[in-house]
Amino acid sequence: MTVARTVELEGHIIDSGTMGMCFGVVMDMGGEFEVEEFEVGRHKHAETYCRMRVMAETEEELRAILHELNQQGATVADPRDATLEAAPEDGVVPVEFYSTTNHPTYVRVDGEYVEVEDVEMDCALIVERAGPEYPQEVGDGDDADDGESDDGTRVYTKVLNAVEEGDLVVTGETGIRVEPPERPRNGGGSFGFMQGGVSSERPSASLIEEIANEMREVRENDGNVLVVCGPAIVHSGGRNALADIVRAGYIDGLSAGNGFAVHDLERDLYGTSLGVDTESLEHPRKGHKHHIYTISEIARLGGIEAAVDDGIIDEGVMYECIENEVPYVLAGSIRDDGPLPDTITDSLEAQDAIREQAQEADLVLMLSTLLHSVAVGNCLPSTTKTVCVDINPATVTQLLDRGSAQAIGMVTDIGTFIPMLRDELLE
Amino acid sequence: MTVARTVELEGHIIDSGTMGMCFGVVMDMGGEFEVEEFEVGRHKHAETYCRMRVMAETEEELRAILHELNQQGATVADPRDATLEAAPEDGVVPVEFYSTTNHPTYVRVDGEYVEVEDVEMDCALIVERAGPEYPQEVGDGDDADDGESDDGTRVYTKVLNAVEEGDLVVTGETGIRVEPPERPRNGGGSFGFMQGGVSSERPSASLIEEIANEMREVRENDGNVLVVCGPAIVHSGGRNALADIVRAGYIDGLSAGNGFAVHDLERDLYGTSLGVDTESLEHPRKGHKHHIYTISEIARLGGIEAAVDDGIIDEGVMYECIENEVPYVLAGSIRDDGPLPDTITDSLEAQDAIREQAQEADLVLMLSTLLHSVAVGNCLPSTTKTVCVDINPATVTQLLDRGSAQAIGMVTDIGTFIPMLRDELLE
Amino acid sequence: MTVARTVELEGHIIDSGTMGMCFGVVMDMGGEFEVEEFEVGRHKHAETYCRMRVMAETEEELRAILHELNQQGATVADPRDATLEAAPEDGVVPVEFYSTTNHPTYVRVDGEYVEVEDVEMDCALIVERAGPEYPQEVGDGDDADDGESDDGTRVYTKVLNAVEEGDLVVTGETGIRVEPPERPRNGGGSFGFMQGGVSSERPSASLIEEIANEMREVRENDGNVLVVCGPAIVHSGGRNALADIVRAGYIDGLSAGNGFAVHDLERDLYGTSLGVDTESLEHPRKGHKHHIYTISEIARLGGIEAAVDDGIIDEGVMYECIENEVPYVLAGSIRDDGPLPDTITDSLEAQDAIREQAQEADLVLMLSTLLHSVAVGNCLPSTTKTVCVDINPATVTQLLDRGSAQAIGMVTDIGTFIPMLRDELLE
Amino acid sequence: MTVARTVELEGHIIDSGTMGMCFGVVMDMGGEFEVEEFEVGRHKHAETYCRMRVMAETEEELRAILHELNQQGATVADPRDATLEAAPEDGVVPVEFYSTTNHPTYVRVDGEYVEVEDVEMDCALIVERAGPEYPQEVGDGDDADDGESDDGTRVYTKVLNAVEEGDLVVTGETGIRVEPPERPRNGGGSFGFMQGGVSSERPSASLIEEIANEMREVRENDGNVLVVCGPAIVHSGGRNALADIVRAGYIDGLSAGNGFAVHDLERDLYGTSLGVDTESLEHPRKGHKHHIYTISEIARLGGIEAAVDDGIIDEGVMYECIENEVPYVLAGSIRDDGPLPDTITDSLEAQDAIREQAQEADLVLMLSTLLHSVAVGNCLPSTTKTVCVDINPATVTQLLDRGSAQAIGMVTDIGTFIPMLRDELLE
Repeated sequence: MTVARTVELEGHIIDSGTMGMCFGVVMDMGGEFEVEEFEVGRHKHAETYCRMRVMAETEEELRAILHELNQQGATVADPRDATLEAAPEDGVVPVEFYSTTNHPTYVRVDGEYVEVEDVEMDCALIVERAGPEYPQEVGDGDDADDGESDDGTRVYTKVLNAVEEGDLVVTGETGIRVEPPERPRNGGGSFGFMQGGVSSERPSASLIEEIANEMREVRENDGNVLVVCGPAIVHSGGRNALADIVRAGYIDGLSAGNGFAVHDLERDLYGTSLGVDTESLEHPRKGHKHHIYTISEIARLGGIEAAVDDGIIDEGVMYECIENEVPYVLAGSIRDDGPLPDTITDSLEAQDAIREQAQEADLVLMLSTLLHSVAVGNCLPSTTKTVCVDINPATVTQLLDRGSAQAIGMVTDIGTFIPMLRDELLE
Repeated sequence: MTVARTVELEGHIIDSGTMGMCFGVVMDMGGEFEVEEFEVGRHKHAETYCRMRVMAETEEELRAILHELNQQGATVADPRDATLEAAPEDGVVPVEFYSTTNHPTYVRVDGEYVEVEDVEMDCALIVERAGPEYPQEVGDGDDADDGESDDGTRVYTKVLNAVEEGDLVVTGETGIRVEPPERPRNGGGSFGFMQGGVSSERPSASLIEEIANEMREVRENDGNVLVVCGPAIVHSGGRNALADIVRAGYIDGLSAGNGFAVHDLERDLYGTSLGVDTESLEHPRKGHKHHIYTISEIARLGGIEAAVDDGIIDEGVMYECIENEVPYVLAGSIRDDGPLPDTITDSLEAQDAIREQAQEADLVLMLSTLLHSVAVGNCLPSTTKTVCVDINPATVTQLLDRGSAQAIGMVTDIGTFIPMLRDELLE
Repeated sequence: MTVARTVELEGHIIDSGTMGMCFGVVMDMGGEFEVEEFEVGRHKHAETYCRMRVMAETEEELRAILHELNQQGATVADPRDATLEAAPEDGVVPVEFYSTTNHPTYVRVDGEYVEVEDVEMDCALIVERAGPEYPQEVGDGDDADDGESDDGTRVYTKVLNAVEEGDLVVTGETGIRVEPPERPRNGGGSFGFMQGGVSSERPSASLIEEIANEMREVRENDGNVLVVCGPAIVHSGGRNALADIVRAGYIDGLSAGNGFAVHDLERDLYGTSLGVDTESLEHPRKGHKHHIYTISEIARLGGIEAAVDDGIIDEGVMYECIENEVPYVLAGSIRDDGPLPDTITDSLEAQDAIREQAQEADLVLMLSTLLHSVAVGNCLPSTTKTVCVDINPATVTQLLDRGSAQAIGMVTDIGTFIPMLRDELLE
Repeated sequence: MTVARTVELEGHIIDSGTMGMCFGVVMDMGGEFEVEEFEVGRHKHAETYCRMRVMAETEEELRAILHELNQQGATVADPRDATLEAAPEDGVVPVEFYSTTNHPTYVRVDGEYVEVEDVEMDCALIVERAGPEYPQEVGDGDDADDGESDDGTRVYTKVLNAVEEGDLVVTGETGIRVEPPERPRNGGGSFGFMQGGVSSERPSASLIEEIANEMREVRENDGNVLVVCGPAIVHSGGRNALADIVRAGYIDGLSAGNGFAVHDLERDLYGTSLGVDTESLEHPRKGHKHHIYTISEIARLGGIEAAVDDGIIDEGVMYECIENEVPYVLAGSIRDDGPLPDTITDSLEAQDAIREQAQEADLVLMLSTLLHSVAVGNCLPSTTKTVCVDINPATVTQLLDRGSAQAIGMVTDIGTFIPMLRDELLE
């Protein structure tokens, strides 16, 4: 072992798994470690501190190990500023660019740690220094939490396609501090800590009760609940119950695809016109004529809001969103029919709209859609609580794996889940 | 084509798919057909008649084709008696034995068609002629439906291991008439006809309502509802609701494994003794100490009934079965702990007990267990209605594929399904 | 029953299931039928003819029934031209527009049946009459198969968003003839006929052999093989084998998402630069730095082709596509990183590119991607052969359900499937 | 917190996760901890030592916490003997009986730690003291590893149904030391450490290579490979390749159900007699006549071995087992047809036979059967390496969850896996 570097860890690093993972990372990647100082947290609320020397055969191996350790929460001990390099052109990052996690992150610029704004994984970190070109905003110098340092320096994430030539991009691993979530001291309540699997062992009804409680709590705290919706909600008969939940004010944003909205509107259009109970309406046979005509009709009127204003659409999830001023994003995909005029067909534009929704959310309900849930999940910090519901266990596992530190995964039928959740919330 | 034989079909054979399948079978198996007579059913209630000549290159190929056609409902036109051959020894059938379907079947013996008793698939057909040794029962001569001919001849199914040396076993394909289910003229109501897939398109809540209606109807007609239960019922929190359904008198028989019963009893034993709400009781951590101890405790008392009598067990599904005299079968398997004294550890003995339950049932609810549902399904005639509920679509598909002509398949969460079914039934 | 109409069916309508389905449709939808004439096909190659009167209570019900019957292949007997109505505005269809199936379709215009060009499901049918504004093309009058009548009238499909104000759209059900696929007389070979399920019973190795044979046959006939690729191909280690297959000339088009291409290129970039065996290259740990950097690097160079020209990319699937002039479409989605410059981010534009690929294909291999396979499948006529391979049975079932009349569905591991297919093709 | 106890942990307890889990257990279960001494392992090979005081509100809560901690590897510091209590009757354990893990376990009897023989989870620990009734075996006093102390005292596991009245059963948590597996210092090679998920990211072909290497290594060390087989092996076409692997001497034991053996034998019987290639033999259509007749035929001959001796069976997996003297266990279940004379129909008897196989195994391949794999897995110590292969990810996850510390989970098609494994092993 010819090269070495010292890193530090601090916090509830034993029971949160951080310490063990760091030892594991070094061994798995062919390095060695030497613990120089270790002060165990002697009781529940005491933090543990560890300083260790990490050794590797080559600089390249050491860098790779340090990159991993950093993402787990270890910080290079040496108190130097982060290195910065200008983006060579639009949409291009320097070779050693630092790729973000979704954990709270701090970057040392000019001797001070600046919190990263809008942290999101797989992004570049852009530093924007205060100065003549970037005049300091007035009265904002004392708030460390907004990602702006005392002198107005900002650090924020940019997805690759937003990087512009000349942007100052953080590279390497020095001067970057990541704070992965820690195991909550109080057990964490209904939300599991870093739960990679699925709570199959918890009874469904009591899980639904816990989710309802969480939604109520978020509402009481003026928080923001984002619901991500797949078309199975309509097929399985959960639509009316979801509309009730929106009307009752539990939802602050809706993210879905064109298909969900069309199915929802189609129920209304054909349920109304044919005078049948929309919940028991049998799905049209093979042909999708009603589906296409629904889109055509909404297009003719100029969009969903216009259709509501016209009185053509007078119930359902989209209707309640418009009536209750719940903003929605309909993101297009290559399997769409139509699409509706409301649907954003460009994927980058749609991602930007989703990103905005995600950053505002305090609780995200992901209901029976892998595509849209992944898109939302990609934009979420690890501190946002999520609830992932799907009939397919693989979908739930995949969403939990990439996601939040506090998540409930539930493998259930959305057609029974939403009515039971509605009853819990509204009764 | 050097060999030929004539077969006949009659009934709603076009829309039930029989006719098409028969043409297909002949073509797929390398034969030829020549329709000799065809009288189409000109309206909904009129039956179609077809007589066709089937040709093949060899006798062996022709036999194989005729075997398939017979199972689809085509009858060899030639009005001869079925051929019979004595079983050479216990558990052994003649080489050309006729292997049963699960459809109503009639065998021609001594010039008369006798209905097969207790029809079940993959069995041998045993003919028991009336005579000095088999004295004709009095006053039973005029009832053709009980599988006994006028002179007391009986034909019934035997599984292989029940075949005894000397049993007269039906062989070949002549003199056997199979009546596959026909597409109901009225649409069939909630139960699909020969539905190989899953009603994913029907809303969950309305499907549950239809199942409840069916259960009510069976009860009103003094029918028999058999419920087949997997341990997921307990894990997912459906246990109390199922106990309510049993107590309300909707269940006439229960078929399960050792695991279901132990989990149910464990909830009671530990729920009661520790004073916690049994529905929200968290599953014990990795160890299964409570599980093992529950079995030990029931064994000490001498079985479930004794434990109920002792007052040790005073709620739950097994408790309600005993209190309401609902007979149950607990079939053992190689993954069991214990097992309970009530569990039948020999698989042949368990099959016999299950067979008895299956033959009495008018409606079977298969809830979250593949093993026990297949075991029950193996013993059911195609005329018994079944409801298959599982979170795994592959399980539902597999059960529907081998099963009843009238079935509801539902991919849902048993932990939400049972409470909603209870509410439908009991509200 | 107060209203009635007469329809005709002709062909191998019994064993293809058409006749039975038509009887079923009428009964299920509350109508009545009266067979007026029925001439059964007496042997394998003889067609069946049926003329029947369909009755319903109201005109609306009758229209709904006729719509369904038409989609199954029944034609309204009355020989009248299709009704046409001008599209009221861009992207809007008349209320009674005819929504297409994916079967060969003929529309009666000015007394003559014109074949629909580029048939695709869920589209509107547009009629373009020859005349002063639409001058007849020279020398094309005698070819009935190209969807152009003798006098140059064309009928073609348009997806909703392509409909322009004033387009003559076919409405109602008269004058439209649909030809659903018939059960092949020879058994159909390896491809199942209207096979809704999955060939789980056929041994994997022999299925792969049959697929290889089909690919060879298409190549020998100068046909076109389109491969639809998901990123699992790279993760599971099937990439090198697929590159071999492309290099050997078995692939004529590739349809995928941004993710597939990035994973493929990343293997090359990092495999090459780090000198490790790309097949056993362990996936980078949680972070996706390499993934992002790959996109950045390709963007810097100006796209995949430029990267190949530069010698930066010198192996893999995308490399072989470029070297062997196999055109590819990379369609964007909201879960993409980057994306690559080659990726089409607008979903309508991407659909158009996919549509073009689909219309040229004679055989489509759908490999481990639901999203892209559905998008391609949406554009395919039912006559195109498809092979659907996925580890998830639900994906395979979904693709087979909406798809081709001749399809092989295979639930297998793409990481073992592709190497075995390569060995079959190239050994 | 009114009651307390001190526990100790030692080993690679940080990176193996033990330490973190122990802190977590105490917090989750409502207790408190106070670390009294902590000596961190300063480098890879140095062990960590921790002594901590655990506090709870009641004795009952404390016992529950200590039980959990013990199962994670913490030992009550107080050096007292384990408490023993006689089993009150056959099949009944004392209320506070110690329920085993599947980790190496030591019990303190008369001042000395005795290793538990044949450790298996969910069992009781039985102590058999040396003495007049249990005369000490000669020359065995110095071997601590064989579960016998210097004076001949033995401690071994008994499943509940084997417990006999008067057996000395270990109760409580004192005097018991459990050694959970530790993270291997060298990365562990191909087998993951406590890997709850599935190696979906590792390329299939390279995983198969690693499995082949492991099998070769076991064979070179005269180890024992047990293969657990489901019927899908035959359906999917993996049978011939498995027969080759058995013939080449890589398999030392086979565990399966009746169905696997019947399908294997049926291929041979009908493949041979009809002269068709058994691998491509199409599965018989709906009926299972061949299946039943195969059982009948084997029964007539007196069993599989007799059928091989008779020359009726001359290829396939069961044939190779008999020819190569590979012992097999066929365990019965309630869904069996027949069964074969070789099948053990009593589940307790079958479990005993499986237990014997499991205890001898050094490597277990679980191939496409949940039922039999769970039954085998129940009897395995955590130190036995396992390979779990199934097309259903839920099956693989379930097997890994309950299993070995060193396991490879692979979601793949058994019909491609076995041929590729054969090629790896035999080429």
